Amino acid sequence: MRMYDIIQKKRDGNPLSEAEIQWFIENYVQGNIPDYQVAALCMAIYFRGMNLEETTALTFAVRDSGERLDFSEINGLRVDKHSTGGVGDKTSLVVAPIVASLGVKVAKMSGRGLGHTGGTIDKLEAIPGFNTDIPVDEFKKIVNRVGIAIVGQTASLAPADKLLYALRDVTATVDSLPLIVSSIMGKKLAADDDCIVLDVKTGSGSFMKTPEKSRELAEWMVQIGKRAGKRMRALITDMDRPLGYAIGNSLEVIEAIETLNGNGPKDLTELCIALAAHILNLAEKGSYAECEKLAKDAIASGTALKTFADMVDAQGGDKEWILHPEKFPKAKYEYVVTAKKEGYITGVDTESYGVASLLLGAGRNTKEDVIDPAAGIYLCAKTGDFVKVGDKIAVLYSEKESGFAAAEERLLNATRIETNPPKAEPLILDIVE
Amino acid sequence: MRMYDIIQKKRDGNPLSEAEIQWFIENYVQGNIPDYQVAALCMAIYFRGMNLEETTALTFAVRDSGERLDFSEINGLRVDKHSTGGVGDKTSLVVAPIVASLGVKVAKMSGRGLGHTGGTIDKLEAIPGFNTDIPVDEFKKIVNRVGIAIVGQTASLAPADKLLYALRDVTATVDSLPLIVSSIMGKKLAADDDCIVLDVKTGSGSFMKTPEKSRELAEWMVQIGKRAGKRMRALITDMDRPLGYAIGNSLEVIEAIETLNGNGPKDLTELCIALAAHILNLAEKGSYAECEKLAKDAIASGTALKTFADMVDAQGGDKEWILHPEKFPKAKYEYVVTAKKEGYITGVDTESYGVASLLLGAGRNTKEDVIDPAAGIYLCAKTGDFVKVGDKIAVLYSEKESGFAAAEERLLNATRIETNPPKAEPLILDIVE
Repeated sequence: MRMYDIIQKKRDGNPLSEAEIQWFIENYVQGNIPDYQVAALCMAIYFRGMNLEETTALTFAVRDSGERLDFSEINGLRVDKHSTGGVGDKTSLVVAPIVASLGVKVAKMSGRGLGHTGGTIDKLEAIPGFNTDIPVDEFKKIVNRVGIAIVGQTASLAPADKLLYALRDVTATVDSLPLIVSSIMGKKLAADDDCIVLDVKTGSGSFMKTPEKSRELAEWMVQIGKRAGKRMRALITDMDRPLGYAIGNSLEVIEAIETLNGNGPKDLTELCIALAAHILNLAEKGSYAECEKLAKDAIASGTALKTFADMVDAQGGDKEWILHPEKFPKAKYEYVVTAKKEGYITGVDTESYGVASLLLGAGRNTKEDVIDPAAGIYLCAKTGDFVKVGDKIAVLYSEKESGFAAAEERLLNATRIETNPPKAEPLILDIVE
Repeated sequence: MRMYDIIQKKRDGNPLSEAEIQWFIENYVQGNIPDYQVAALCMAIYFRGMNLEETTALTFAVRDSGERLDFSEINGLRVDKHSTGGVGDKTSLVVAPIVASLGVKVAKMSGRGLGHTGGTIDKLEAIPGFNTDIPVDEFKKIVNRVGIAIVGQTASLAPADKLLYALRDVTATVDSLPLIVSSIMGKKLAADDDCIVLDVKTGSGSFMKTPEKSRELAEWMVQIGKRAGKRMRALITDMDRPLGYAIGNSLEVIEAIETLNGNGPKDLTELCIALAAHILNLAEKGSYAECEKLAKDAIASGTALKTFADMVDAQGGDKEWILHPEKFPKAKYEYVVTAKKEGYITGVDTESYGVASLLLGAGRNTKEDVIDPAAGIYLCAKTGDFVKVGDKIAVLYSEKESGFAAAEERLLNATRIETNPPKAEPLILDIVE
């Protein structure tokens, strides 16, 4: 086989065979195919797409490009929840402890964030002592003992995805359905879970800007997961508003703790309960309504929070911070952003909110950047709220004052204020199974 | 500016600005932009195209990416003729001496062939002693003295094209109108000629497989040349048959000499006279009919052949070989290909004829390959001829016997033999000015 022929075939709109896709991924990982040929292929895929067969083959090739995990030593059903990215999304920190407290196992490998705000791993590292780099045997033991552990993805997991993502990121080929599907599912399927629930975001802060596109993405991921023998479900959720009020690593951990305490923001609580209920339902813990009640009870009884604290303890963190979140230090500088106009907030560009938090130090511009755990944004008004001139919209937190002006400008430009209130949109737009 | 934004802009179907195109070419040549980003851009251009403004900007950026030649020391109008490639195309070897013998100056920089058969430079190097690597001052002196010199392109001429072409060649992005136009015209415009006549091939052995596409290519090149202040004309010519009977370097030189002697194949002679007449007409040597007569007379009187011999002499070659072409050695091995079927030859795949000659040693697979000057194919039957089973179709020449079987197979597969004679098609399909 020749990479040239594969590029040409896709360029001309013909489907690639499973053998061609496997050959390309194997040889790319082995360093036999130069980046420039892969970049040309990704752009051809961007224009020509891939059918479900090709996308399945690509996903499985990415999955098989490195180590495949074996969780058979973990007792009981293993579940995972994955979100397709989002600003201020701390649902994993809430959902995973809820379901683990109800007897399903969460052995979660999570990524770091690049761009926007940090990933789940970055958020957890805001807890002093918390270790996300645990050998796999120890990791499995913690899951068996506590019911849950969350660690960083190892370099040996789906290396093809790391290479492809880094290349797509600099060649304007991220926004391609088959490439997004194979990237997310290739990694997910390399882990050894039984049930996977996906939270597919739609709107300004997400891969897919329309519900139709997001639904297509969800359907393909669900189908490919089923072909790999997984129980699958996906929720399409609205990202035209940030989730909760906190954006930034320790701010989001604190908000997750509040939610596990039963005092979380309404939208965040609603989505976390729904995600947990779907996971429990897939794991055959009862009907959806029964599972919803189980999840609510796990919060009300405190068992979900206790499970979170136990996980923090097992992974070397200080569980006192979870039980007393006032221990998290505040950032050195605060800056209040006020409304310059009266009216209803009718919508926000959450992607710009993410960039604003990055400017404050909450995210990474390059892989080498160090995240400032206390940096971020706390929103005081969200979509649907009425504000007068001078009303607080948000408080910005940072270790340096230099980013405030640019972050404020981003935030204000990204907040639409109009005379009439917006139509109330549901948070969960659709369910795909 | 960021290369990412330029790729994304083109990917989304938006025209690039002149400043963006200049920035991209300058930085690519300086090594500031990696090949993988350029490969992604080339594929986006393949799908989205470029308008005439963008293509002009790209052409001028390629032209300006290296040294621009100054031919002002050459007395009189400078003319050039360029062919968009073709199998068995030795027209430059005939046309250039004809027009030079009539008082216009030919200061020709020509490329080597990669793939198929050799380029003009490879053909000339079949003449013993012929030097194609002459310092530019000496080159200009020869042109002033003899009226003509043909040398290889220097590395400093349009280096952006060398980089781009090498990359397109391995990323399936050669077949793109704006990229072809900017490659050909970027190099042509870096030389300092007054009149350029293009021979744009159409059909199986050329860039453009249909007359419509070829006409579009010709129109764009003519328009861009005029924008650069050149007098331009283009002929669209048929490549669904090889030109003349000879394919291979010394075989083609011998056929060019026969043509300059007035004994050339009908199709080759017709095209050479037409190309020469258009050049002379552009150079204001008279009406087209007058120029056609001048060209024919230059052959009949022997002045065109004498000019060719004088150029060979001036460039260090043995002019006796031009006056006595029987001096060219034959290849060590010959192999006769015969018809396996009776009927009219109704068409040939000239590209496959080119590949067959490459298999015999007449072309290069990689830049490092050494060409065998005597290798090649001499056709005994062409499109329109009637053949019986066992009739000679071609004689293959090579220094090794090992390539004959594969070359014969290629040749036979590429030769269509049918019951009814083909419709006679004109060789020159259209003229664009």
